[in-house]
Amino acid sequence: MAERAPPPEDDVGVADVLAAHARLRRYLPATPLHYAERFGTWLKLENLQRTGSYKVRGALNALLVARERGDRRPVIAASAGNHAQGLAWAAHRLGMQAITVMPVGAPETKVAGVAHWGATVRMHGNSYDEARAFALELANQHGYRFLSAFDDPDVIAGQGTVGLELAAHAPDVVIVPIGGGGLAAGVALALKSQGVRIVGAQPEGADNMARVLRGDDSAPLPGATLADGVRVRHPGQITRRLLAHLLDDLVIVREAELRETLVRLALEEHVIAEGAGALALAAGRRVSGRNKCAVVSGGNIDATVLAGLLSDVRPRAPRKPRRRAESRPLRTAAPLVTLARSIETAPQVLEQEFAP
Amino acid sequence: MAERAPPPEDDVGVADVLAAHARLRRYLPATPLHYAERFGTWLKLENLQRTGSYKVRGALNALLVARERGDRRPVIAASAGNHAQGLAWAAHRLGMQAITVMPVGAPETKVAGVAHWGATVRMHGNSYDEARAFALELANQHGYRFLSAFDDPDVIAGQGTVGLELAAHAPDVVIVPIGGGGLAAGVALALKSQGVRIVGAQPEGADNMARVLRGDDSAPLPGATLADGVRVRHPGQITRRLLAHLLDDLVIVREAELRETLVRLALEEHVIAEGAGALALAAGRRVSGRNKCAVVSGGNIDATVLAGLLSDVRPRAPRKPRRRAESRPLRTAAPLVTLARSIETAPQVLEQEFAP
Repeated sequence: MAERAPPPEDDVGVADVLAAHARLRRYLPATPLHYAERFGTWLKLENLQRTGSYKVRGALNALLVARERGDRRPVIAASAGNHAQGLAWAAHRLGMQAITVMPVGAPETKVAGVAHWGATVRMHGNSYDEARAFALELANQHGYRFLSAFDDPDVIAGQGTVGLELAAHAPDVVIVPIGGGGLAAGVALALKSQGVRIVGAQPEGADNMARVLRGDDSAPLPGATLADGVRVRHPGQITRRLLAHLLDDLVIVREAELRETLVRLALEEHVIAEGAGALALAAGRRVSGRNKCAVVSGGNIDATVLAGLLSDVRPRAPRKPRRRAESRPLRTAAPLVTLARSIETAPQVLEQEFAP
Repeated sequence: MAERAPPPEDDVGVADVLAAHARLRRYLPATPLHYAERFGTWLKLENLQRTGSYKVRGALNALLVARERGDRRPVIAASAGNHAQGLAWAAHRLGMQAITVMPVGAPETKVAGVAHWGATVRMHGNSYDEARAFALELANQHGYRFLSAFDDPDVIAGQGTVGLELAAHAPDVVIVPIGGGGLAAGVALALKSQGVRIVGAQPEGADNMARVLRGDDSAPLPGATLADGVRVRHPGQITRRLLAHLLDDLVIVREAELRETLVRLALEEHVIAEGAGALALAAGRRVSGRNKCAVVSGGNIDATVLAGLLSDVRPRAPRKPRRRAESRPLRTAAPLVTLARSIETAPQVLEQEFAP
């Protein structure tokens, strides 16, 4: 990463996250923080956010900034789901026009969510990339504003408000799922100056940000994963610049572990997460901290997928609590996990690349 | 109800609920209040409470009161699940001994929850009544304290803290599920003096509190219902006295409506409720209010039951929002729904009996 310059100050910074916070709080109340006792981890419940994911924050911030600037162009986005839903909700709320292009095969619940809020839905292409190309084409033809799901300063600043809401809780480490990198970049901007460690999570086989951050720009087509929300082939340019400087660690999560975590979240914590939403908690098992917080980024999962997981996955019973023990993790000085131990895939390489 | 005396002041009153609140807040943080946009209803998320239901409040309050009084007897309870889990958690937390008798056929997840917290589990009898008789027998033999799941002043006061946590939100109506009546009685004690309407919800075929309140003491064996948590044959004596004076209305919910609400809660709001936990929201469709709040009383549902519902139930799509409309219910003076319209079963009888 030596060849990359530090992030340009004018892209997006912590001041933009604070400004986004001031804009959004009228529309979006803070989401709850829930202590998952059997996981020993706090959960930031963005599955209870409007439209069922944090994505509405970035989309709404971008529309509000546009309105401040007098930019009244219709907004178009390509999205496998949550960004489209967030944009549709925000446009509905502000009385603006939104068009979304979704790839064929996007989860039904996400397509229905977009249509519910009155946005135009165009199903096009078999992948996010094809949908994106079509959206850009429509934007050029009709003079729409194209809004990236993650590689946009206003979107990153909006997602960063998740981090600001966590600040009062004073976590020592926050774990976030990474697809394009918008949430991780925003949260890192919000919390890094307070000494909070930021750890990313990606599923095995859809870990292109991890690749990019260690200098591998091959951008292979991501494999199938339950975490459809982070299945991004080309991570953002702004986000990768920010994360190269701000991310402390990145954990690769195996599919089986992700499935088990999603089912345990449902049965033990009564929290419905979509695949990407369970990613950070799954990674959190390999991250130590006195006051760990994992972002449950969204809850939009198809009924049939969830029913299948509930039928197929039999989680191992969690450890029994010690008799008379305090049920919260003790506040002793636990040694920080080393980078090598916290990373399942290619630990040596990542350790080398991520050491600050 | 003319033959019944007003509730004796020494049973349990609002001062006991306030005292319980002071006792419990060290152990149990307030649960979140979530606005379910597509239902137009606020949800008090007791499914995110420790042990996955509000029952831990009453059990913990009872144990803390006992400790204050110097009563160190082991505590025994009969319960189909959530009271047992709450008692087990509370006993674990305070380092006390708890024994629970559960009927054969109690949901697996609830049995596992009790065992998890280290309480002794005895499976006995085919119904709550048989389990209860056995628990009373053991209590007499061994000098244990028998703790009712609902007909106990300390338990009612503890459950009432749900209402106190809602007070700051200033709801005009709160809807609660009713089995034995502990939650409804406690919440009514907490909120009634503030002019909040309290509406109960029972499933069709397991509505013995509704029967008792209109003078029918036949106590038929409750039918099968998804809402196993409120399947109570003999409602409490203290609770029935309180509710005869404090309950404004009682809505009977059909099983199909309950199933659909539970599935919509999962898919649209990403909230996992057990059957009884979805009851108040299902009833809420028939209750008007500017600022309605339904208590999602618990989330302990077996994986196979939830998977089956997610596969079988296809909810109707919710109404589309109006373009540019405010997404929260408008604060106009909506006419209160009449009693007759809000009750599905035997409206005339209930109307007559419930008029204050």
